[in-house]
Amino acid sequence: MSAPVNRAALPTFAQVQEAASRIAPYAVVTPVLRSAVLNALSGADLHFKCENLQRGGAFKFRGACNAVWSMDDAQAARGVVTHSSGNHGNALAMAAATRGIPAHVIVPDGAVRTKLQAIERAGAILHRCEATQAAREAKADEVQRATGAELVHPFADTRVMAGQGTAALELLEQTGGVDIIVTPVGGGGLIAGTCIATHGVAPQVLIHGAEPMGADDAARSLAAGARVGPFVPDTICDGLRTLIGETNFEALRMHRVEVTTVSDEEVIAAMKLLWNELKIVVETSSATVLAAVLKRPERFKGKRVGLVLSGGNVDIDALPW
Amino acid sequence: MSAPVNRAALPTFAQVQEAASRIAPYAVVTPVLRSAVLNALSGADLHFKCENLQRGGAFKFRGACNAVWSMDDAQAARGVVTHSSGNHGNALAMAAATRGIPAHVIVPDGAVRTKLQAIERAGAILHRCEATQAAREAKADEVQRATGAELVHPFADTRVMAGQGTAALELLEQTGGVDIIVTPVGGGGLIAGTCIATHGVAPQVLIHGAEPMGADDAARSLAAGARVGPFVPDTICDGLRTLIGETNFEALRMHRVEVTTVSDEEVIAAMKLLWNELKIVVETSSATVLAAVLKRPERFKGKRVGLVLSGGNVDIDALPW
Repeated sequence: MSAPVNRAALPTFAQVQEAASRIAPYAVVTPVLRSAVLNALSGADLHFKCENLQRGGAFKFRGACNAVWSMDDAQAARGVVTHSSGNHGNALAMAAATRGIPAHVIVPDGAVRTKLQAIERAGAILHRCEATQAAREAKADEVQRATGAELVHPFADTRVMAGQGTAALELLEQTGGVDIIVTPVGGGGLIAGTCIATHGVAPQVLIHGAEPMGADDAARSLAAGARVGPFVPDTICDGLRTLIGETNFEALRMHRVEVTTVSDEEVIAAMKLLWNELKIVVETSSATVLAAVLKRPERFKGKRVGLVLSGGNVDIDALPW
Repeated sequence: MSAPVNRAALPTFAQVQEAASRIAPYAVVTPVLRSAVLNALSGADLHFKCENLQRGGAFKFRGACNAVWSMDDAQAARGVVTHSSGNHGNALAMAAATRGIPAHVIVPDGAVRTKLQAIERAGAILHRCEATQAAREAKADEVQRATGAELVHPFADTRVMAGQGTAALELLEQTGGVDIIVTPVGGGGLIAGTCIATHGVAPQVLIHGAEPMGADDAARSLAAGARVGPFVPDTICDGLRTLIGETNFEALRMHRVEVTTVSDEEVIAAMKLLWNELKIVVETSSATVLAAVLKRPERFKGKRVGLVLSGGNVDIDALPW
């Protein structure tokens, strides 16, 4: 008997590199934008990696695509399933479509309307459930048993983390290197992948997390030295309401990540700055990274900073200002 | 005595190429974005040239920058002046700043607030006037006489048209070629430059203009076979309310440009599509090009289409929906 596979183990740097090759035919090499105004405002040299311009409007396509194309043909034919507040579900639906396999997406009540529409449009089968982590996982189990579909977890999945890390690989290449990379922290798939990708290339680069105050479990976990338990999120950053995954949190510790928490008001102010100065549509979760940089000038001033703008799936008929 | 110089003469293809070299150190090579959803909706293969991501948030920086760096040192030291509804004024202010020379900008009453703020931030000296073409030109004359500054007209200027044409040069190179290029039509600087640049590279490419119904002077002029006179614009497309320039109109005739007119409602619908699908902030004027493509499927279906998204200077606190 072989040992059970740890599906949530952190990927190696080689797995991030393999992911980059695997997703290259499908994913967009997103542009890096800059702004003299935002540089002046922050006193730093800011390089924005625009994952809102990724397929599906978020970095999530990278991880989902890597997972879908990592599967063997027999496994793939049975399809994939996930539970997601939106962007990962959409990404998995789109990734499954690139391989012509079924995608089942569990969506919790209260998910953003435009995200649900996008998931349906991408051809996924939607399964609704209550907006709790437990209800999502139960529903995913049910679909898995009924269909034989493979679970692709939004963040506690080696393939997904490896895929998310490819954004940092590109950022480092496009900028010629930075001093610090800032990403939002939700479940921790993006930041874990970013740690491994970045330190595989440039071990001296600092990785910084940005988290909403109303979902500050990663910051509290780092302060406590151990992962805190489930909590009730209270933030407009709908993509970051999740408890950080266990191995994802380990990545934060191993890679000495520092996390800055920001208020919803700071997020909205940063979001407006990004819209006005970069002329791009970013969602609330994305804006946490600029909010964090503006909040802690002592950390970022004079530095070359890479900021991962995670997504742009906003309901433009219901803006938060 | 030498013959008077025609400052509004159409540029040659060589002048467009020179402009490309001249502005290269200052201008952004803007990305070309695509969308599977918009391709499906239009039945065409759409390539969006994102001039909203240009410095200053509009293609106007190209022409202004070419003009500023075409001047000799003595002339440059006296500064530049222009009258502009916003984007060109902002662009000239930013271009002048790259050379460290003064910029005087005449701004008509009623110009978009965010555009005025940007112009001031860029370091220009603002001069207000009434919102008529005559009042703008009179004020510009006055400033010119007082300061010796060089007039850089928003569109009836050879250097400006040459600079605007560089966007099409990039688009053709980035896409490997298209069948049709669509640009908005206001004063005609962008479309004239686009004609000359495009046909210098690929004479078979069709050039198509998009014009708001409430400022359809180019369409009416083409239909009449002669340039119509001044009119009172009635459109939300604040960048396109100008009467097309005389030589600009000549370019439309010489290059067999076809113009499609679109309603403000069609513009708003297209603008929302661009925000939602491309995740970028574009202004109303930019959206005319997608509105035109969606309005006339018989012209565009099955074609490779380049669309120049002219700018992204929107007041995000006062969106038109």
